[in-house]
Amino acid sequence: MGRVTQRRKVLRLSLDGQTNRRMDTLAAEEPLEIRLGAKAFSITMRTPGDDFDLVAGFLVSEGVVWEAAQLGAMRFCAGEDEQGRQTYNVIDAQLAPGVALPDTSLERHVYTSSSCGICGTASIDAVTKSSHFPILGADTADAGQDTGNDDGALAGNASPHLPLATLLSLPDKLRERQQVFDRTGGVHAAGLFSFDGELLCLREDVGRHNAVDKVVGWALREGRLPLSDTVLQVSGRASFELVQKAYLAGIPVLAAVSAPSSLAVELAEESGLTLAGFSRGNTVNIYAHPGRIIGAKVEIPL
Amino acid sequence: MGRVTQRRKVLRLSLDGQTNRRMDTLAAEEPLEIRLGAKAFSITMRTPGDDFDLVAGFLVSEGVVWEAAQLGAMRFCAGEDEQGRQTYNVIDAQLAPGVALPDTSLERHVYTSSSCGICGTASIDAVTKSSHFPILGADTADAGQDTGNDDGALAGNASPHLPLATLLSLPDKLRERQQVFDRTGGVHAAGLFSFDGELLCLREDVGRHNAVDKVVGWALREGRLPLSDTVLQVSGRASFELVQKAYLAGIPVLAAVSAPSSLAVELAEESGLTLAGFSRGNTVNIYAHPGRIIGAKVEIPL
Repeated sequence: MGRVTQRRKVLRLSLDGQTNRRMDTLAAEEPLEIRLGAKAFSITMRTPGDDFDLVAGFLVSEGVVWEAAQLGAMRFCAGEDEQGRQTYNVIDAQLAPGVALPDTSLERHVYTSSSCGICGTASIDAVTKSSHFPILGADTADAGQDTGNDDGALAGNASPHLPLATLLSLPDKLRERQQVFDRTGGVHAAGLFSFDGELLCLREDVGRHNAVDKVVGWALREGRLPLSDTVLQVSGRASFELVQKAYLAGIPVLAAVSAPSSLAVELAEESGLTLAGFSRGNTVNIYAHPGRIIGAKVEIPL
Repeated sequence: MGRVTQRRKVLRLSLDGQTNRRMDTLAAEEPLEIRLGAKAFSITMRTPGDDFDLVAGFLVSEGVVWEAAQLGAMRFCAGEDEQGRQTYNVIDAQLAPGVALPDTSLERHVYTSSSCGICGTASIDAVTKSSHFPILGADTADAGQDTGNDDGALAGNASPHLPLATLLSLPDKLRERQQVFDRTGGVHAAGLFSFDGELLCLREDVGRHNAVDKVVGWALREGRLPLSDTVLQVSGRASFELVQKAYLAGIPVLAAVSAPSSLAVELAEESGLTLAGFSRGNTVNIYAHPGRIIGAKVEIPL
């Protein structure tokens, strides 16, 4: 897998005398500079591989593009390391005619134009991007609020539904296919699944946000956005940023193996996205919009 | 602990019929806007708490300040949420007279000025900041290279030395004191220890880089930089970014519970920093500059 991993000698120390040198496989991390129309746009630390997908997904996450036709040709810029080898660490992407180049000065200073009070007020709004793909079919039930009327929170009429057994099967399916993690223990994974539990795309990266961007970029380039009726299963925790990326790609269900943050839950509630966390073995926590999940043996209320 | 965590109702689904609603504690994640002299500088998603430390450490990591006197007053800007409460999500920091405001346009476009070829060549240089605190006392032995002469790799004359037993004790010491993790399972931790294994400062945050910035910022404000003869133990993996933050604060040893990335190892080698990973139980991997560690029963070469 070439530049995805690196072999290094490592000194293994032990209190009981097992000290030795051995080879270790590391997850590769290298900077990728993204240019738009030859102008610097962003630089990100990532695991090399699927870089065009990463760029495409990053542009979706930034709200710049949302369909394949908006993205023109991408190419690696010439660039050599000390040995004269192409580094493949700079990509120039062209946007289709009519697609606005993002104003990077505005990007950095978007919060400056707000008065201090306004910025403080609109904390979640200030960092939330609106999606071109509002998530449809979300129930109005809310796992986080006790409305006193729990009927139908699991039997909501949103359609189609995701079987609980399928949702619970995804962490193992993801784990089984994490080739880079197997060798390094050092990367995150994001897997896109159908509601039938079929794996559509899996990507690994030292940055969890990159793994998601690579999945979304793959989908954009395949003409699959919005990603209706899919579940994005991630290997770690669920941050605000991951919920936002799922939301911008039209993914209705985000499931994490570990904990979500408070703002991840808040954005999921607001955007109609089903957010699952601590998906382990036979149990899973649903933090927002449980109505898409069916098949729990005991329906609430208990 | 107020805004550090949030309580939410969560729907716990199970295949075996244990479905129920219960309260769950989430790690809080909120945006913090950092202003320098009333001008927007950066926005970061973080767990509220120790925000002045976070700002101070962020400024160290960005190479803006490196001693307490360079940082003037910090204050929360007025800002209210929908209920009229101060949000405490905007901080304005003053730099001392003579300290240059960073050029944020240059910050974003620093890579633009390089030709494509230069940028490609200098991949690690392009993202590396130089430290005001070159790390002293690093041995010249390199765990990653087989020089054919291993004598003294562990017995190097760098001074002072960190006992292996102390290094191996740090993950448990860190874990015992992770109060927010205990309740949420959703935060990273960074702990600064003396070479005697004494805990100097511990911080938790949804972002591992924030946890480190909070530790470094605490040290800056206490007048403790450079952090010679200390170990920074982190709860997860070691990325390039974490090595760079340690390097900029003059921390000679960075230890991670999990894997380092390739670029983390590369930067540690170049900057003279001892990098430890997979520190678990009685064993630990040393990826760069093992000469500071003493006390392994069997000295190499084996």
